[in-house]
Amino acid sequence: MLNVHLVPHTHDDVGWLKTVDQYFYGDRNDIQHAGVQYILDSVVDQLLKNPDRRFIYVETAFFYRWWKRQSSSAQQTVKQLVNEGRLEFVNGGWCMSDEATTHYSAVIDQMTIGLRFLNETFGACGRPRVAWHIDPFGHAREHASMFAQMGYDGFFFGRLDYQDRMHRMVQKEQELLWRASDSLTPPTADLFTGILPNGYNPPEGFCWDQSCDDPPIRDDPDLEDYNVQHTHTHTHTHTHTHTISYGGATVYKTNHIIMTMGSDFQYENANLWYKNLDKLIHYVNAQQANGSKVNVLYSTPSCYLQELHRANLTWALKTDDFFPYADSAHDFWTGYFTSRPALKRYERISNSNLQTCNQLEVLGGPASRQGPFGEGESQTMKKAMAVAQHHDAVSGTEKQHVANDYARRLANGWQRCQVLVSNSLAALSGSSAKRIYCDNLNISVCPLTESSKKFSVSVYNPLARPVTRPVRLPVNGTAYAVSDANGKAVDCQVVPVSRATREVRRNRGFAVNELVFQVQAPPLGYSTYSVSLRQAGPRPASAQPGAPTVIQNKFLRVTFDPDTGLLSSLSNLETKQSIKLTQNFYWYNASDGNNLESNQPSGAYIFRPNSSTPFCEYNDRCWFTLQTSVVQEVRQWFAPWVSQVVRLHGDSRALELEWTVGPLPIDDGLGKEVITRLDTSIKTSEIFYTDSNGREVLQRKKDFRPTWNLMQSEPIAGNYYPINSRAFIKDDVDQLTVVTDRSQGGGSIHNGSLEIMLHRRLLYDDVRGVAEPLNETSNIFPEGLVVRGRLLLSLDPPSVAADAHRPLAQEVVMQPLLTFTNGDLSPNTRLEFSGLQAALPPAVHLLTLTQWDKDSVLLRLEHQFQSWESKVNSQPVTVNLQKLFSTLDVLGMSELNLSANQWKDEMMRFSWTPQKGTGHPHLSGDPSTWEVTLRPMEIRTFLLRCRHKKNK
Amino acid sequence: MLNVHLVPHTHDDVGWLKTVDQYFYGDRNDIQHAGVQYILDSVVDQLLKNPDRRFIYVETAFFYRWWKRQSSSAQQTVKQLVNEGRLEFVNGGWCMSDEATTHYSAVIDQMTIGLRFLNETFGACGRPRVAWHIDPFGHAREHASMFAQMGYDGFFFGRLDYQDRMHRMVQKEQELLWRASDSLTPPTADLFTGILPNGYNPPEGFCWDQSCDDPPIRDDPDLEDYNVQHTHTHTHTHTHTHTISYGGATVYKTNHIIMTMGSDFQYENANLWYKNLDKLIHYVNAQQANGSKVNVLYSTPSCYLQELHRANLTWALKTDDFFPYADSAHDFWTGYFTSRPALKRYERISNSNLQTCNQLEVLGGPASRQGPFGEGESQTMKKAMAVAQHHDAVSGTEKQHVANDYARRLANGWQRCQVLVSNSLAALSGSSAKRIYCDNLNISVCPLTESSKKFSVSVYNPLARPVTRPVRLPVNGTAYAVSDANGKAVDCQVVPVSRATREVRRNRGFAVNELVFQVQAPPLGYSTYSVSLRQAGPRPASAQPGAPTVIQNKFLRVTFDPDTGLLSSLSNLETKQSIKLTQNFYWYNASDGNNLESNQPSGAYIFRPNSSTPFCEYNDRCWFTLQTSVVQEVRQWFAPWVSQVVRLHGDSRALELEWTVGPLPIDDGLGKEVITRLDTSIKTSEIFYTDSNGREVLQRKKDFRPTWNLMQSEPIAGNYYPINSRAFIKDDVDQLTVVTDRSQGGGSIHNGSLEIMLHRRLLYDDVRGVAEPLNETSNIFPEGLVVRGRLLLSLDPPSVAADAHRPLAQEVVMQPLLTFTNGDLSPNTRLEFSGLQAALPPAVHLLTLTQWDKDSVLLRLEHQFQSWESKVNSQPVTVNLQKLFSTLDVLGMSELNLSANQWKDEMMRFSWTPQKGTGHPHLSGDPSTWEVTLRPMEIRTFLLRCRHKKNK
Repeated sequence: MLNVHLVPHTHDDVGWLKTVDQYFYGDRNDIQHAGVQYILDSVVDQLLKNPDRRFIYVETAFFYRWWKRQSSSAQQTVKQLVNEGRLEFVNGGWCMSDEATTHYSAVIDQMTIGLRFLNETFGACGRPRVAWHIDPFGHAREHASMFAQMGYDGFFFGRLDYQDRMHRMVQKEQELLWRASDSLTPPTADLFTGILPNGYNPPEGFCWDQSCDDPPIRDDPDLEDYNVQHTHTHTHTHTHTHTISYGGATVYKTNHIIMTMGSDFQYENANLWYKNLDKLIHYVNAQQANGSKVNVLYSTPSCYLQELHRANLTWALKTDDFFPYADSAHDFWTGYFTSRPALKRYERISNSNLQTCNQLEVLGGPASRQGPFGEGESQTMKKAMAVAQHHDAVSGTEKQHVANDYARRLANGWQRCQVLVSNSLAALSGSSAKRIYCDNLNISVCPLTESSKKFSVSVYNPLARPVTRPVRLPVNGTAYAVSDANGKAVDCQVVPVSRATREVRRNRGFAVNELVFQVQAPPLGYSTYSVSLRQAGPRPASAQPGAPTVIQNKFLRVTFDPDTGLLSSLSNLETKQSIKLTQNFYWYNASDGNNLESNQPSGAYIFRPNSSTPFCEYNDRCWFTLQTSVVQEVRQWFAPWVSQVVRLHGDSRALELEWTVGPLPIDDGLGKEVITRLDTSIKTSEIFYTDSNGREVLQRKKDFRPTWNLMQSEPIAGNYYPINSRAFIKDDVDQLTVVTDRSQGGGSIHNGSLEIMLHRRLLYDDVRGVAEPLNETSNIFPEGLVVRGRLLLSLDPPSVAADAHRPLAQEVVMQPLLTFTNGDLSPNTRLEFSGLQAALPPAVHLLTLTQWDKDSVLLRLEHQFQSWESKVNSQPVTVNLQKLFSTLDVLGMSELNLSANQWKDEMMRFSWTPQKGTGHPHLSGDPSTWEVTLRPMEIRTFLLRCRHKKNK
Repeated sequence: MLNVHLVPHTHDDVGWLKTVDQYFYGDRNDIQHAGVQYILDSVVDQLLKNPDRRFIYVETAFFYRWWKRQSSSAQQTVKQLVNEGRLEFVNGGWCMSDEATTHYSAVIDQMTIGLRFLNETFGACGRPRVAWHIDPFGHAREHASMFAQMGYDGFFFGRLDYQDRMHRMVQKEQELLWRASDSLTPPTADLFTGILPNGYNPPEGFCWDQSCDDPPIRDDPDLEDYNVQHTHTHTHTHTHTHTISYGGATVYKTNHIIMTMGSDFQYENANLWYKNLDKLIHYVNAQQANGSKVNVLYSTPSCYLQELHRANLTWALKTDDFFPYADSAHDFWTGYFTSRPALKRYERISNSNLQTCNQLEVLGGPASRQGPFGEGESQTMKKAMAVAQHHDAVSGTEKQHVANDYARRLANGWQRCQVLVSNSLAALSGSSAKRIYCDNLNISVCPLTESSKKFSVSVYNPLARPVTRPVRLPVNGTAYAVSDANGKAVDCQVVPVSRATREVRRNRGFAVNELVFQVQAPPLGYSTYSVSLRQAGPRPASAQPGAPTVIQNKFLRVTFDPDTGLLSSLSNLETKQSIKLTQNFYWYNASDGNNLESNQPSGAYIFRPNSSTPFCEYNDRCWFTLQTSVVQEVRQWFAPWVSQVVRLHGDSRALELEWTVGPLPIDDGLGKEVITRLDTSIKTSEIFYTDSNGREVLQRKKDFRPTWNLMQSEPIAGNYYPINSRAFIKDDVDQLTVVTDRSQGGGSIHNGSLEIMLHRRLLYDDVRGVAEPLNETSNIFPEGLVVRGRLLLSLDPPSVAADAHRPLAQEVVMQPLLTFTNGDLSPNTRLEFSGLQAALPPAVHLLTLTQWDKDSVLLRLEHQFQSWESKVNSQPVTVNLQKLFSTLDVLGMSELNLSANQWKDEMMRFSWTPQKGTGHPHLSGDPSTWEVTLRPMEIRTFLLRCRHKKNK
């Protein structure tokens, strides 16, 4: 008997063509007919009509909105449906996150708030057993690793490379065991993974949603067009011929098959679906009396998974990932790795700010939420960040008005958090002086510093180890005195604002200079610096026309080609290694779709250059050099829409490339996709490396996929991969690592070369539904968006490179927050504070510290090194939780799974056997109750019962 | 307080873009998203959620389909909703009939079967109180008259001439009292009539169906786009400014206003509507606490009507009708009066056949339904005729595939009826010889008569008085002998088949000759004629080339212009009156929409000639004359697509014009609308007359409307009116009446002239939703449909004209049915039968005789003269019901209302006071229980308990 598991489901994008609230309400149906409130209304009604019916729901952002408007009796009914398994939650995060452009920190957060809501609302019956990423455009190994650590029994998705799918169909490997970490001990990161037979859509001819036109089952013999016989035959034919077999051979291993009966925003009128599904099941199964071997049933992914588990088979093992995704030969979904670079950066900064907000909510205690600056809270920001993880949010594949909505939500969230942060800092510092936030420092805009003669700046560091970093403040004076928390003078420099900054800031600020100095901040704490305008002092440094031949500090030496003004080499003075390094900006001409091979244009999703050779023609080049004790800069001007500052700070081991790109000109009628390319003397053998969601690093090889013989059809786009936080190229001697400040796409097309796409401006839609060209403009930039960002380069021997890039990348992800106060601080103000008793060891990253409920906080500690990447740091390391905090007593602790919706010791997952098994070594436990050991790449999640220490 | 009655409703076309069953199931949603099964599912569910909610349902054809698939518990729930007034039926006919192109006989039938289903299913609570014709494209006075006699308290519709609406808004006459008969004693035909404020759609911005894009009410302050305040303001503004007032003045009389909250096929997902309506009511009424004077409530048309009645006002009196309908200056909906002339004729023949079937089911007794030819029944035909009355069915405004579906249903129905008719005639005649039906006699196709050497033909006459008429049978012999039921020889002629017939029949028949003879048939009975091929006999008459100057019989003399071959005069030899009469065929060039004044093209609905001057260019004219004792014919050939036979039978007082038009040529890229025009010497003063639904006659005047000052903007289309069965022009001396064989549009554009549109072929859609040009082709006529029909002309003094045209028209509407048997009949066969004891008086028409249930039959007797039109016949006339039937004993009788869903003596209607009242004269009752008196234009409906007489 072939069992056909019909899985009624809806796929509800948490924003795409409409905003999340428009989708919830069914507003703006002129754009797309979709109203989630009605979907949930309707499904609940229909589930009640027949106990056999099943439904799964996925996106908690929507479910939450609906739930809180229901009467308590309606809530009780839904609880009953959940308890009886008729309504089942799958995945259950706040959204279904993008996998290419999200950072693991934000993904874990969004899963946590979604699953927490389900846990608190429905208890164990509401805990999803299955991860469900049916729509994301490629699948990250780190996502699989996280899902495994969140306790999911399995994972289903719909999209993968079309060649990969064909290969897997032939090999019967559409269901497999994904070993999603090279560092974590199996089966910690093992995840059973199923590829759905029909994307996430119903089989052809069986779509009975109001949005579909398939014929209903017409079973009244008195009316015209009776079609019950046809229905049975069609089901049988379809099941056997199209979905579960290919070329006559079956393509799945068991006598079970899953059919996704639903699609985008379907089930708004669930009666249409269920009425016809009831009939389908009735009439098809009735044929069993005539010898039919097809059994159709209402089911869910977890029921289906249970049947697979019961089959007790072995499964193919996969250790790489599912990037890039192509649905056809010239249709590589690698453009969205970079789409909307400004939104991608804003999302990343917002995450940093949220982590600071969360930490200060814990450290500041209840006074953070209700303090001198009013009511502050972090929920708004948490939810805004959670929706921003959606696979059409930070991915950049939404309509412009929806991108604006995501940004507005983040801004609103940050405003609520600012109140909390101000309250918390007031409590910690003992000063209620007004805190001012300057969110536009990247373009040298800060009204306070531009006009004030005396102000202080507090630098809050959310990392669990001290950081040192330069700050640059817009000023209009020519000389300033800076002192640290101890009153000690700090070396500072006033430098002129660059031409690029003057142009990009438009009329939002008018500073002529920037004040640059280095600050230090303690772990989970702040340090306060005072700045005073000096009546007299050294003249500001000036930028001299012309390129230098060299800039250097005590760590790095950087040379330039005097003819081109471009970088020519990079040397690490400590390790005495040196490489040739040329860096330049290029643009691909985006395909407009008028092409013999394919009519696919480049768009929000898809990258398809018209030619494999990028353009590099700028007729306005010039450069300036500025060299001071604090910072050295080469300001490169290529064109009004491409410029860069090559910057070397006095104490930095990384070279900063601050690029400014845009507005991309389109008056030539050509869409443009701008890259920067680093061409080096490193012998890469066409191999390079990219991180997965900001964590583990995967090897990439040109024109190659680890699990099948690739037929490469797009020499550039088909070699692009997501870069979430870093990429590197290396040979036996040299590793050049690039740390990025946001997710970007990139590739290594030539030996020794690494290219990163920075900005895209396109004139055509790429026909994947968004129905807008990715052509970003705004009120401030009506002629096209300007984007600024930074790449940080480090050159090291491969064996120690991670010791540099791991902390460097975390400093970018969780950056210090500057707050300003005008004038003098009151004398009793506490100018320095650390929430930790001591810095954590270098291998340990404090990933999460957030208030959970009144008496407890959620803590995540992470080993941030892979098992193979550092002799020093890739070792287990032990942390004593009771000695962690300086101002909190830890009274109790319990360990949770990664998503914090289950006690760790209650987490029981299905065990699956790979075709080529590896043994599970016995791991030693923690040394003691309070001392917890972290192994490479491990994240451990704890609920700590805490109390603020007295008199602190 | 202003009370806003929100009336949730759906308008479900019984076929339009999809067939009735496709609409019911929600099949072919690619054409139009609509599924009535789901509408009713959904509405019932939603009504149960809130006892305040109301819904009205209209089309019983759909409700019946749904009801019979419901479980008994679901049926019980629906009964409860009906009993509580939460679900209310309005109108309640099988469909919402067209008003321009339907015949009253079929309209009464379709209302009867719809209302009967409601009566038998729901009892008194299911009886609609309100007639509801929200969509038909103009409104017939006869419909209003029928609705009044069916017991409705009021009538609402949505469409009327835009000038009329403006006028009525200003005058506050959108609610009025329609006195819908000039013959029936008030208030018999008085009908309160309300014009809905917004067609039948919701006010702008308040459409919350899944098919609409209006923003929902967003009342969660936590989400973006909260709009409750806006909702209230908008409602208030809308209610006051747009809907109920115009130019600052209110346009309705009371402090109640009705709002139709729904539209075409809406409420498939009723939750969307009700959820937002609940909120609207809640939030708007909540403002009453702040002084708002708006009260919003769920309501129904009958609730609203009750409030109007309670207001106890006087209302404007209207005595004309609402034709033609124009929604803009160049958008006259007068094309559909003629659209699909073949379907219109087929529907009319089908009605005649159904009446015969009904009668024979009664006269033949149970043996009709189960007899020698199997199981016969009339239900299929009744339902097929009922759906064909829909305002996108016989109107010709449906898509081609839907027109085909209506025709197929009629054909299926007739097949079932043929079995019944054969069984019944077998029972009545005592012969089980096989009956053969020749449905294509109009094109001289009948395989039996074409090949048989001996056959008989039975002529069943469904009228209550004897008829005499010619029959024409296709034959291949040259001489035949015909004898009547008494064995008496009958004069007959063999004439050659005309060229037009040979061309139009294609390969469906091959007869070279037609046998013509006169037959007589008794009231509600048949007479049988025997036909034998003669070995020798007179040569067939031959058609001589060339036009005659005159043809005549003892009643009429017809002259022709020898130059043109056209008619030149018509004389009544009995009355010695004579008129000049020219008749010719013309075509209007249909507007293609490319026009400075308006871009409205001619289409299925709309008639818009490109020029007011029709074309008349034919380069292939010729004519033949055929003169015999039985018939005289002038065969006029204008072009391959226009021809005519002018025919005068020996005993006829009417001149027959048999026209054959099509395929209309379109290779010149011009749409064509073919008319025939009669130009006479009658002095008409721009006045002519048309019937309303085949009953009372209304006066029409060029460029004039009785109730407002018309600004005429379409000199032809704006003067077109529906002609259902007849039109006439007259002066003091002469009346020329044209009786048609189907509904057609026509006008009198010139003095003494009458034009009738015969056929239309158009190349553009007229943008009223059907989305197809009216360009009929078929398998047999791939190059364009050919249509044949007849006009019957009579010339009389006006004072006695009705004495001729009333019976003449009834003979066309209820035409004899011919059945054939091959070879000799058995000797015992009863060759003649009448179901009546005697013919009814000339003023009385037997409208309905149909089996109601096992022991009772439904009888409708009708006075077929208006009060003013005949000295002789416009008098009350009394009929004795007990002495009516020859083979049935009438054991009991009860009188019903016109639609047979209420006892006449229990029919209590609201009484309404016209602004200019007329007294209600006391009418004398019937002379005795069994003797019933019919006054002019009265229809009386009786349920008779009958028993078949023994030994008959």
